[in-house]
Amino acid sequence: MKALVYGGSGQRHWAEAPDPHVVDPTDVVIRVDTVTICGTDLHILGGDVPEVQPGRILGHEAVGTVVETGAAVMTVRPGDRVLASCISACGRCRFCRSGSYGQCTSGGGWVLGHLIDGVQAEYARIPFADLSTYPLPENVTDETAVLLADIMPTAYEVGVLNGQVSPGDTVVIVGMGPIGLASVLAARLYSPAHVIAIDKAESRLRAARQFGADITVAPGDDPHPVVWAASGGVGADVVMEAVGTPESFELCTTLVRPVGRVANIGVHGRPAALHLEQLWSRNVTITTGLVDTRTTPRLLSMLAAGQFDLAPMITHRFALDEIMQAYDVFSQPGDTGALKVVMTRT
Amino acid sequence: MKALVYGGSGQRHWAEAPDPHVVDPTDVVIRVDTVTICGTDLHILGGDVPEVQPGRILGHEAVGTVVETGAAVMTVRPGDRVLASCISACGRCRFCRSGSYGQCTSGGGWVLGHLIDGVQAEYARIPFADLSTYPLPENVTDETAVLLADIMPTAYEVGVLNGQVSPGDTVVIVGMGPIGLASVLAARLYSPAHVIAIDKAESRLRAARQFGADITVAPGDDPHPVVWAASGGVGADVVMEAVGTPESFELCTTLVRPVGRVANIGVHGRPAALHLEQLWSRNVTITTGLVDTRTTPRLLSMLAAGQFDLAPMITHRFALDEIMQAYDVFSQPGDTGALKVVMTRT
Amino acid sequence: MKALVYGGSGQRHWAEAPDPHVVDPTDVVIRVDTVTICGTDLHILGGDVPEVQPGRILGHEAVGTVVETGAAVMTVRPGDRVLASCISACGRCRFCRSGSYGQCTSGGGWVLGHLIDGVQAEYARIPFADLSTYPLPENVTDETAVLLADIMPTAYEVGVLNGQVSPGDTVVIVGMGPIGLASVLAARLYSPAHVIAIDKAESRLRAARQFGADITVAPGDDPHPVVWAASGGVGADVVMEAVGTPESFELCTTLVRPVGRVANIGVHGRPAALHLEQLWSRNVTITTGLVDTRTTPRLLSMLAAGQFDLAPMITHRFALDEIMQAYDVFSQPGDTGALKVVMTRT
Amino acid sequence: MKALVYGGSGQRHWAEAPDPHVVDPTDVVIRVDTVTICGTDLHILGGDVPEVQPGRILGHEAVGTVVETGAAVMTVRPGDRVLASCISACGRCRFCRSGSYGQCTSGGGWVLGHLIDGVQAEYARIPFADLSTYPLPENVTDETAVLLADIMPTAYEVGVLNGQVSPGDTVVIVGMGPIGLASVLAARLYSPAHVIAIDKAESRLRAARQFGADITVAPGDDPHPVVWAASGGVGADVVMEAVGTPESFELCTTLVRPVGRVANIGVHGRPAALHLEQLWSRNVTITTGLVDTRTTPRLLSMLAAGQFDLAPMITHRFALDEIMQAYDVFSQPGDTGALKVVMTRT
Repeated sequence: MKALVYGGSGQRHWAEAPDPHVVDPTDVVIRVDTVTICGTDLHILGGDVPEVQPGRILGHEAVGTVVETGAAVMTVRPGDRVLASCISACGRCRFCRSGSYGQCTSGGGWVLGHLIDGVQAEYARIPFADLSTYPLPENVTDETAVLLADIMPTAYEVGVLNGQVSPGDTVVIVGMGPIGLASVLAARLYSPAHVIAIDKAESRLRAARQFGADITVAPGDDPHPVVWAASGGVGADVVMEAVGTPESFELCTTLVRPVGRVANIGVHGRPAALHLEQLWSRNVTITTGLVDTRTTPRLLSMLAAGQFDLAPMITHRFALDEIMQAYDVFSQPGDTGALKVVMTRT
Repeated sequence: MKALVYGGSGQRHWAEAPDPHVVDPTDVVIRVDTVTICGTDLHILGGDVPEVQPGRILGHEAVGTVVETGAAVMTVRPGDRVLASCISACGRCRFCRSGSYGQCTSGGGWVLGHLIDGVQAEYARIPFADLSTYPLPENVTDETAVLLADIMPTAYEVGVLNGQVSPGDTVVIVGMGPIGLASVLAARLYSPAHVIAIDKAESRLRAARQFGADITVAPGDDPHPVVWAASGGVGADVVMEAVGTPESFELCTTLVRPVGRVANIGVHGRPAALHLEQLWSRNVTITTGLVDTRTTPRLLSMLAAGQFDLAPMITHRFALDEIMQAYDVFSQPGDTGALKVVMTRT
Repeated sequence: MKALVYGGSGQRHWAEAPDPHVVDPTDVVIRVDTVTICGTDLHILGGDVPEVQPGRILGHEAVGTVVETGAAVMTVRPGDRVLASCISACGRCRFCRSGSYGQCTSGGGWVLGHLIDGVQAEYARIPFADLSTYPLPENVTDETAVLLADIMPTAYEVGVLNGQVSPGDTVVIVGMGPIGLASVLAARLYSPAHVIAIDKAESRLRAARQFGADITVAPGDDPHPVVWAASGGVGADVVMEAVGTPESFELCTTLVRPVGRVANIGVHGRPAALHLEQLWSRNVTITTGLVDTRTTPRLLSMLAAGQFDLAPMITHRFALDEIMQAYDVFSQPGDTGALKVVMTRT
Repeated sequence: MKALVYGGSGQRHWAEAPDPHVVDPTDVVIRVDTVTICGTDLHILGGDVPEVQPGRILGHEAVGTVVETGAAVMTVRPGDRVLASCISACGRCRFCRSGSYGQCTSGGGWVLGHLIDGVQAEYARIPFADLSTYPLPENVTDETAVLLADIMPTAYEVGVLNGQVSPGDTVVIVGMGPIGLASVLAARLYSPAHVIAIDKAESRLRAARQFGADITVAPGDDPHPVVWAASGGVGADVVMEAVGTPESFELCTTLVRPVGRVANIGVHGRPAALHLEQLWSRNVTITTGLVDTRTTPRLLSMLAAGQFDLAPMITHRFALDEIMQAYDVFSQPGDTGALKVVMTRT
């Protein structure tokens, strides 16, 4: 088969690779029908994720059709159209037992396209299929479903649930990339009074308004007076960090009200300053998190019921064998306006 | 009357001061029967709390007898023996309504011995008495009750409740001053499997064992292998910071397990580094907090029922007019072994 | 002044009554501008609430203008337009301290038009004004605000929060009177997948659809197959009882899924059968509740932000001195189609 | 092999039965080393559990040694000493995913000795072994471990966690059979102020005091004044029902304070009256529950750490092939004083 293979820092190839097969009785193999690229894939290509070895097939967000199942797989059968989640879950370790699938200590967690071959390929082996693949309702398209492989559960679990968004809240979200935009959408499920979007690109703020932000802070403007005005002078109930830089995180901690929550969603490469000399007495809660995807079944049924619409997130479409070109587009969002690019088997 | 008056950085006097009187209808005046000194009082004397003006009477932890009540006071009467809490609560603002008394925006919060005259005096005015003083059960002594003015609710609310200590947990507490020791005692109420105490002074670790720590880390030893061994190799469920330095806080964030909690109790004067490059994916919750004292009624009834014993915390006793000497003892704990010093009206 | 005075079972009069005055320093007196009638008022007139004495002025839902304040009142001033809540809160007792205002043991709780004179009058004394009246934002009309005196916080706290409605839930609400309809609206704040309305009157089901129910069960139809179909075959996540009869409550307990919640909102006069022989193993949570109105400030700010619209609830409008006629209309909803009737000072 | 076989209402035999084998890849077979009898087994013999077919091997609480494992079993190996839990969990269905193992819809839940052959036998097949068996720490004996197969997790999850026992609470437990006694022990983990035990047998109240009840209500005495005196005049924070009769449940609902919790643990055969005419306004939470055993790993580590001692629960010991006699003793507790009887392989 053909697959997108990592060749070491800066190198990727759409190359021939061995067909995958069931190895463990809990595995399935899927034919990949729809797949997307994550910002993390760019980090890998940038050489920032050293545990990824050259030769690794990348990708952790796909929709596919089951073609082979291990003997212990109970919940999917050959022919089923399934979502392949970014997180694999053994279902047995102490973390999986409490729904912390992302922290799985027995071979799961984020492994696809990272520690084992991923889904940017014609076929892929998915371990622990019973807790890592999700049969799709008929009325859900591949394109919208694939956005539930990573970004929507990340926004919902790590942003909205960790941040405890509640009706009437003032919510600030810093960073309007795909995850930040999905967080705007996900926050709206709890009827906040205001969702305030902050980003340095005006085009992304326009997208934010489309996904439900009612207030945006123009690039270069100070967000503090905006947040204070919206929140009755106390600061935001919830602030989400969706950039991944120290500056962005530190901004978040200055925008939150006493007894408020800061939910970090961004992937960070450097430490931030935590201003405990100001925060110690303000009863603030700060959370971090890799997604668990424990809410994926619930999100899928909400998607099937038409409760949210992620389709505007998809800005570019390609055939699967055009994935090299898709990477080019996705890695230049300033020029291309790319949010999510989707590749489909032809 | 006589009172301990702050005279500017480094200066304190046991001096004549005007007798306090009821000003607002929600005030009471108490005769101070028992009072103690807090580490924060030393910070004020060190000049680190600039909003405290020279001439201010210090102190925010006392037991006294009500001598005068405002017209709107409903819950205490002249002659009642009451605890005067470190936190005053208006009971009406948005923060008080949800029990966040420490964040009161209408004249409460930590004001005693800070923004208004305090309780290290023969008499003191206590604002918002209905939510800021607590009648004492007969079988509770002044000496044990005064430890519920600040340290026990701080340990319980900011350490144990924020940290969500649960049965079977491995709990680490860094810093065995009075607050850290009270946190050991308070954590025990939830039956953790282990309470691991960390401090640089062997004498304080001995006290920690007396208050319920089953494991102590000898000064100079690396706590990581100790915590890993106690926790089945994953890190502590809950880590509490009770020192107030960046180094101590940063240590805490390396001792916590994935999906664990770091509860900051310490008062900080400088920022700490938050290693988001390690923490972003570990689903950690970090909390900060000034005490609210919303649990004081519950703690008082537990004290009356004999559910915990704080008496060993009191290492030195003085008459009220020996308070200058008591300060000397309390400010040199390395030499005197002082934990809490108590002054009593004679 | 004139007031609606209870004259014993079945008797009410729009009669002369003494002007109210401030009695306690925490009281205010308001001039009543807008007032409504509650189903409970009809129960009182029916003689079902024996603690209400003849001579009592009825009513516990009003908007008015403050005309006199006690010396200890901090949050409202003469001239302020305020909501007078159905619940008065002393703010000091053990229940008020934890936000359980409805259970106040020191003179609060539901007292207006019950144990003390109420607000169906030209003027009314409101005790504990700081926690029992709420200044109104300019852009909120009297008419919509008065629906936050009782029905909206009841629906939100006792129905939606007790029932823990969550995004994607299947919610069933039995009984589409004003409280049931407000519960439909309030449940929508949490983005449930389905809100299923059950009532015996087709006209009320029409109103339910207007307030956000997406599924209604026609009178006489069996709701079980409807609920099973909507919920993927397991039963409803949340069922709310808003009728107040044993039959209705028992129906609710058959519609809930395992590990689901039944939130009783209805006022009951007789015991219901609890089928523990079926429920013991199903991990069901059942809650009851008198409203606390602790969420009133939050609901008011949401109303001001335009987050929900209760206006369609008001079906009839009268002048205050036409209240006798308003009672006639409100007590015959089958004929008049009345939901809420509102009287306004002219 | 030999096994305790149900022969229809009132009939049981220690009889020859086919050796069990691995059927599904997630199965294990254990050699039974220690096993006990549950009150539910007596209900089956009484004919009250009609879905149990004659020929069924009874029993759902055992410790054994793994002798055979299916291909998909990851967490136990032949030779491991394991606890076989009363609840089997597929780990994949919507209920198992959220830890509601008792409600498993895919072949798990309470099936052992009920819908499939159980563990009162020389060997037993345990389905879904990864989530249904628990390797035992060395320092835990078979005898104490077997009490974690059902009664301790039931007491902890259905009684203590559902009831939200908190430090300082007044807890009432009605019914001092093995589950009620385990609930006393489990409640103590949260440091309640009082655990009040109610039972009709003085001998069981003596046992209750041994397990940690500080107050017992003598048979025939009215518990209300006792509970009111212990709780400061408001009623109990938490009341647990551990009998399984309407009378007992109804008593519980009269002992709980406003805003308190009633946790039903008992197995019921008839409906109870729910006095909504009194309870509707009291903000009470009532929970029911079949155990999930999701806390078994935590309880096992607490047992290994010596945090509680269940051994006094075992009143009688037998060899496995004396199980017919053990049933006689267990079914006459009034005469024999039996709490738990344990049978051991010889």
